[in-house]
Amino acid sequence: MFSETVQAEGHLIDSDILTKIFDIIIACESTYEVLEFQIGKTNDEVSRILLSVNSKSKESLEQALGDLLLLGCRPIEENDAHLKPAEKNACVPDDFYSTTNHRTTVRHQGQWLTASAQRMDAVICIENGQAICRKLRDVKKGDSIVCGHEGIRVMPEFKERDRMGFAFMSNEISSERRVETSVKKIAEMMRQIKKEKGKIVFVSGPVVIHTGGSIYLSQLIKSGYVSALLSGNALAVHDIENALFGTSLGVDLEHGLPIHEGHKNHMRAINTINRAGSIPEAVKQGILKSGVMHDCVKANIPFILAGSIRDDGPLPETLMDLVQAQDQYAKHLQDAHMVICLSSMLHSIAVGNMLPSWVKTVCVDINPAVVTKLSDRGSAQAIGIVTDVGLFVNMLARELAN
Amino acid sequence: MFSETVQAEGHLIDSDILTKIFDIIIACESTYEVLEFQIGKTNDEVSRILLSVNSKSKESLEQALGDLLLLGCRPIEENDAHLKPAEKNACVPDDFYSTTNHRTTVRHQGQWLTASAQRMDAVICIENGQAICRKLRDVKKGDSIVCGHEGIRVMPEFKERDRMGFAFMSNEISSERRVETSVKKIAEMMRQIKKEKGKIVFVSGPVVIHTGGSIYLSQLIKSGYVSALLSGNALAVHDIENALFGTSLGVDLEHGLPIHEGHKNHMRAINTINRAGSIPEAVKQGILKSGVMHDCVKANIPFILAGSIRDDGPLPETLMDLVQAQDQYAKHLQDAHMVICLSSMLHSIAVGNMLPSWVKTVCVDINPAVVTKLSDRGSAQAIGIVTDVGLFVNMLARELAN
Amino acid sequence: MFSETVQAEGHLIDSDILTKIFDIIIACESTYEVLEFQIGKTNDEVSRILLSVNSKSKESLEQALGDLLLLGCRPIEENDAHLKPAEKNACVPDDFYSTTNHRTTVRHQGQWLTASAQRMDAVICIENGQAICRKLRDVKKGDSIVCGHEGIRVMPEFKERDRMGFAFMSNEISSERRVETSVKKIAEMMRQIKKEKGKIVFVSGPVVIHTGGSIYLSQLIKSGYVSALLSGNALAVHDIENALFGTSLGVDLEHGLPIHEGHKNHMRAINTINRAGSIPEAVKQGILKSGVMHDCVKANIPFILAGSIRDDGPLPETLMDLVQAQDQYAKHLQDAHMVICLSSMLHSIAVGNMLPSWVKTVCVDINPAVVTKLSDRGSAQAIGIVTDVGLFVNMLARELAN
Amino acid sequence: MFSETVQAEGHLIDSDILTKIFDIIIACESTYEVLEFQIGKTNDEVSRILLSVNSKSKESLEQALGDLLLLGCRPIEENDAHLKPAEKNACVPDDFYSTTNHRTTVRHQGQWLTASAQRMDAVICIENGQAICRKLRDVKKGDSIVCGHEGIRVMPEFKERDRMGFAFMSNEISSERRVETSVKKIAEMMRQIKKEKGKIVFVSGPVVIHTGGSIYLSQLIKSGYVSALLSGNALAVHDIENALFGTSLGVDLEHGLPIHEGHKNHMRAINTINRAGSIPEAVKQGILKSGVMHDCVKANIPFILAGSIRDDGPLPETLMDLVQAQDQYAKHLQDAHMVICLSSMLHSIAVGNMLPSWVKTVCVDINPAVVTKLSDRGSAQAIGIVTDVGLFVNMLARELAN
Repeated sequence: MFSETVQAEGHLIDSDILTKIFDIIIACESTYEVLEFQIGKTNDEVSRILLSVNSKSKESLEQALGDLLLLGCRPIEENDAHLKPAEKNACVPDDFYSTTNHRTTVRHQGQWLTASAQRMDAVICIENGQAICRKLRDVKKGDSIVCGHEGIRVMPEFKERDRMGFAFMSNEISSERRVETSVKKIAEMMRQIKKEKGKIVFVSGPVVIHTGGSIYLSQLIKSGYVSALLSGNALAVHDIENALFGTSLGVDLEHGLPIHEGHKNHMRAINTINRAGSIPEAVKQGILKSGVMHDCVKANIPFILAGSIRDDGPLPETLMDLVQAQDQYAKHLQDAHMVICLSSMLHSIAVGNMLPSWVKTVCVDINPAVVTKLSDRGSAQAIGIVTDVGLFVNMLARELAN
Repeated sequence: MFSETVQAEGHLIDSDILTKIFDIIIACESTYEVLEFQIGKTNDEVSRILLSVNSKSKESLEQALGDLLLLGCRPIEENDAHLKPAEKNACVPDDFYSTTNHRTTVRHQGQWLTASAQRMDAVICIENGQAICRKLRDVKKGDSIVCGHEGIRVMPEFKERDRMGFAFMSNEISSERRVETSVKKIAEMMRQIKKEKGKIVFVSGPVVIHTGGSIYLSQLIKSGYVSALLSGNALAVHDIENALFGTSLGVDLEHGLPIHEGHKNHMRAINTINRAGSIPEAVKQGILKSGVMHDCVKANIPFILAGSIRDDGPLPETLMDLVQAQDQYAKHLQDAHMVICLSSMLHSIAVGNMLPSWVKTVCVDINPAVVTKLSDRGSAQAIGIVTDVGLFVNMLARELAN
Repeated sequence: MFSETVQAEGHLIDSDILTKIFDIIIACESTYEVLEFQIGKTNDEVSRILLSVNSKSKESLEQALGDLLLLGCRPIEENDAHLKPAEKNACVPDDFYSTTNHRTTVRHQGQWLTASAQRMDAVICIENGQAICRKLRDVKKGDSIVCGHEGIRVMPEFKERDRMGFAFMSNEISSERRVETSVKKIAEMMRQIKKEKGKIVFVSGPVVIHTGGSIYLSQLIKSGYVSALLSGNALAVHDIENALFGTSLGVDLEHGLPIHEGHKNHMRAINTINRAGSIPEAVKQGILKSGVMHDCVKANIPFILAGSIRDDGPLPETLMDLVQAQDQYAKHLQDAHMVICLSSMLHSIAVGNMLPSWVKTVCVDINPAVVTKLSDRGSAQAIGIVTDVGLFVNMLARELAN
Repeated sequence: MFSETVQAEGHLIDSDILTKIFDIIIACESTYEVLEFQIGKTNDEVSRILLSVNSKSKESLEQALGDLLLLGCRPIEENDAHLKPAEKNACVPDDFYSTTNHRTTVRHQGQWLTASAQRMDAVICIENGQAICRKLRDVKKGDSIVCGHEGIRVMPEFKERDRMGFAFMSNEISSERRVETSVKKIAEMMRQIKKEKGKIVFVSGPVVIHTGGSIYLSQLIKSGYVSALLSGNALAVHDIENALFGTSLGVDLEHGLPIHEGHKNHMRAINTINRAGSIPEAVKQGILKSGVMHDCVKANIPFILAGSIRDDGPLPETLMDLVQAQDQYAKHLQDAHMVICLSSMLHSIAVGNMLPSWVKTVCVDINPAVVTKLSDRGSAQAIGIVTDVGLFVNMLARELAN
């Protein structure tokens, strides 16, 4: 029989964490005995648990401890984290510690270091007395990699923090909800964040343009609610197509009718920008006079256009090297207070992977599966709103204009 | 070789009818020869075709002629329709003519009679020199039933009628459309119909309430844009729940939070109406003071609540006898100029079955499959809008208030 | 300050019940103090809690107690339930107790009575020393109705019961799952239930026929895996259409092509059954020779066809009086061990309302929203499988034939 | 009044082309007069039309002619195409001709040249007496670009070609179809193409792995039905994760349960391949012993993994430079006879953009919107099948093994 004693504290019950702790132990074919348990007697008090985990094999025990770690359980005996050198570039020892999006500290030389650049699916390197989350591909031979489970503490977000506000909205994802209510709450948070000079990053797919959200997204940009826009080639192409020719995907946005040679307009838009040399140049030369891209340039809002395999063109600004695109996305997400994802599963999941779990994240899509998927992939903090994205942006801009 | 010569005229090309004519002949393992064809030389001119259909078996020919009939092709030789007596109640001869939703005339004693109460999946009875569409279940033993294919003319709707307006909207069903554009067009039609004292029937599911559309639907009722409301038990229950307790399905519509004992509120709503005796009584007694049902009662707008197998309660007004419910639906759809279906596949398909093809029909749902399904079931005239129904009603009421 | 002390025991943590208890108290604007808490030290041991609930108003306290009751919390002081007479037919006092689908006992004259016919959204009547769940519409003036919160105990299902089996499957609803795995588990349960002479009820929409599931559902019927079939008019019509003409909704199931005059086949099917007088008569007369309906008749499996507002026909067996249909559904669901719902939101929710929470329920649909909705409506025990229902029935029949 | 006379011939009616011709003229605010029309008298005969298009402005006429060109209408007077030099790299004159996916010929020095590398959204360059479709980004300064509408002929696919076979399947996209029927037809075509040593390219998303399709896709590879596999990083990662650890996205595929530390397995898989140096190396070293990637390596089937903004890792083979990825995709699609797209909107649309319209394309997804979208984007030849992709591949492999 192999066993180890672990402890945890926090709002263990409010956040279903205790349930998950027991589930994991059973799933790892182990048993538990609760040695001590102090329940938070009131809503403000935290709970504390001390329990012994017992397994028939060393392997099962290791598995259980590894998973329990992610829920905030740590061995009672404190040790430094194990460090092993990366054997070659982009390659680490097999027992490397793979990060979640939760705040993590690592014990090094008796000190608890908070990992910087927290994100999921990274490794942790110790470098110059600092703990850093690093993507596997950025690991260099010889980097000091945190391995095993010792000397690591993970602090899951406790739902309790703003019980009746943001967290509660996340209960159910359904198209049968009153979106006006959510719009009001989100607008309120945005106002608050803007007031405190915080950062609100928008992530958006081209559907915002097709559904007529363009002018409302522009309003948000102009009113200072957008700190950065993360998107792809298609949003920019269709926005510029719309600004130049009044169409999106060849459909006249004003009348809803497909128009003559409309299929060609997006290629004409790309060609026009190529001629000017870049989007800012086209704005400067007076060729591009309106639209989301125009307004970003005018308001000096950074926009990052990540390339994709289905892109036409691409526009000069589109980053077809995805390593570069991911790095730019990550850079602009740093210190974000809120991220609003509009109708783009691809870019939303990309951003979800990069964000720490304490960043307020809203995901709007007409397809409930997109919204569910983001949560399933680990971005459990994301609030899903199932609605028409064009009308959503319309309502949001109107609410913020009041 | 069996063959017959048929003719057709109209906007055969604009409406893809010619394509379908040829498709059917091939599908019936037959061949065709075009004997004469006059193309409409301009947009206003109709086309005319005379073609011979040739089959190896009498059965194939009969099949082809039966299907061609529905596209407006008729034998050149005019004969009276065959009439046979219904052998018993709700039972007709095997070769009965089954109606479509298109305008149909029947030749009887040398006269072409226009069938009344046109709808799909009915039989045609000749009674007192009149042709009447009758549901199978309403057929009585001895009724004179139109059988075979002779002496019948079907006039499919030609898309051309308002080319650039209503018809064009129906091109594609997609969530990637600008709903504001559609809302404007629909509002315009509604204004026109109201001005001409025409009839606009709303068909609605409970999602309108859950998504916060209640007050906007009420606005439409109060401003005279709703001639009748066809729905089910659930819409009324959740509307009354909302009016009495501020919740819908136990969720507080103002704050979006599930509330204490909310699961019980819909039962309390039913109980309250049961105590008053009926919805109008509850209005009269000052118990029910707001909401869609209240406003229907106040504005004297008829509402029909059809029962369903999943109903709780039901409310006193809910028709749990579906034969009665279908008859009431059909009665209130008579002479409708426009039907707007909001988020209810069940009631929308029911209504689609009852409507002639010349009634403007709009179907709004967040699920594109619902919208597609209505078309697939024969209501090809229905325009589908894929969006959030709560926001749609909000925009529509706002547009009509301008 | 108003306060009351309540207690609960069971697998409070495994089933997230403790979390919900605290959530409710906060949501009711009350506070709590945990007076005693014994945690289940191992997976088999239950937990016990004693806590005081404190509110500023009597109303808030009542609300909190009402909701806590549904999670298994009861006052420490035991009293008889309050009984009040129904004031008229289908109308009960305002503070009536509205049931959940969980096992419930009521204290009457010092005795705890287990409510029979447990289902959600009913009231509890005490009659001849027995507690009975009764639908509101079946309440008669003077019936003795359980009111308030005292003397009632609710026993929520604890997920723990078969941890690694059925319950675990329900974690996530997603189309990105391996359906073969679920099919194997379900087949295993079905074999077990059949062996123990238990009851497996199928609930099915017409999509099973359209997607080619007909012959596989027939196999299940013939092999004795179907105790009753609950459905609507459409399933029977399209099954008979397929048996008589090889089509479903006018599409040739063998070749996938829409066929000549196919639109009419479902009306011909109804007419044929009307002529025979009934489905069993059509089987007896050798007119109906195959299909799901035929095999039900041959195997003497009861089938209930509930009418709906969109029905054509209907067939002679279709119950157009929904009160009767609901009663028949409920009758055949009695003592079911497992219910399998195939592609019919309408009938699945109807059945979900009628079932106690301890009946294993599987809901299969290609639309994840249907599956989610059933859970949201209170049938939390339902396991959702998002897949093609035709292929699902195919795999299930194949697995059970092995 | 500006006017021009154009002609067209082919199966104009079967393919709705005539309808579209008239629609376009009206939409361009022009009128038409049919000067001559010869209808195809039988199914085999083509139709011919000569019509004059009349517009009030030169611009409208140009628009109409530009759009009519895409439907196969060409001016009666034959001229050489206008050539203009590209003004700089990736930038062409404003009136450049933008390609469709239909076969196109260009008149140059009195000769009609068939454009090579036909795809949509390209320009046509004349180089060394040859017409070549070239992506805008590949255009070099001074390239000879086809501009305007003269001297260009487009040959739309006529649906008629295999009326009762492939084309007919495309009628409706719905989840309410019998997938077994489609599987049989597709299997038949695949057998035929393999027999003729034709090329079948598979395009696949990771859902094939999550839904358990892995072993069936492997069977198809081993039996020689897959000429190339176009996918992304995720398919390979989850396939290798499954091969090494038995999980996909951390879910145990055999038992359907999420497993201990499963979230980390995909990172472990990437790390393992990074250590080996490449996928083929991992196969060679005996580390990777099964799965789709393994079987591709063993069978020497090329696989292209395009990077995306949401990728973890990536694997050494993943092309993070999308220009390179698109070029590789295009290379392997050359001369494909059939393309089967499994559950990946991103890669399917990418491939749709690259394919000429005469390549048989099948798109399988559980979400009908994905299937519809591919068609809407111009890949009208794509046949959509709405079903569970894991079960689909299972059925297809089984059918082909018979």
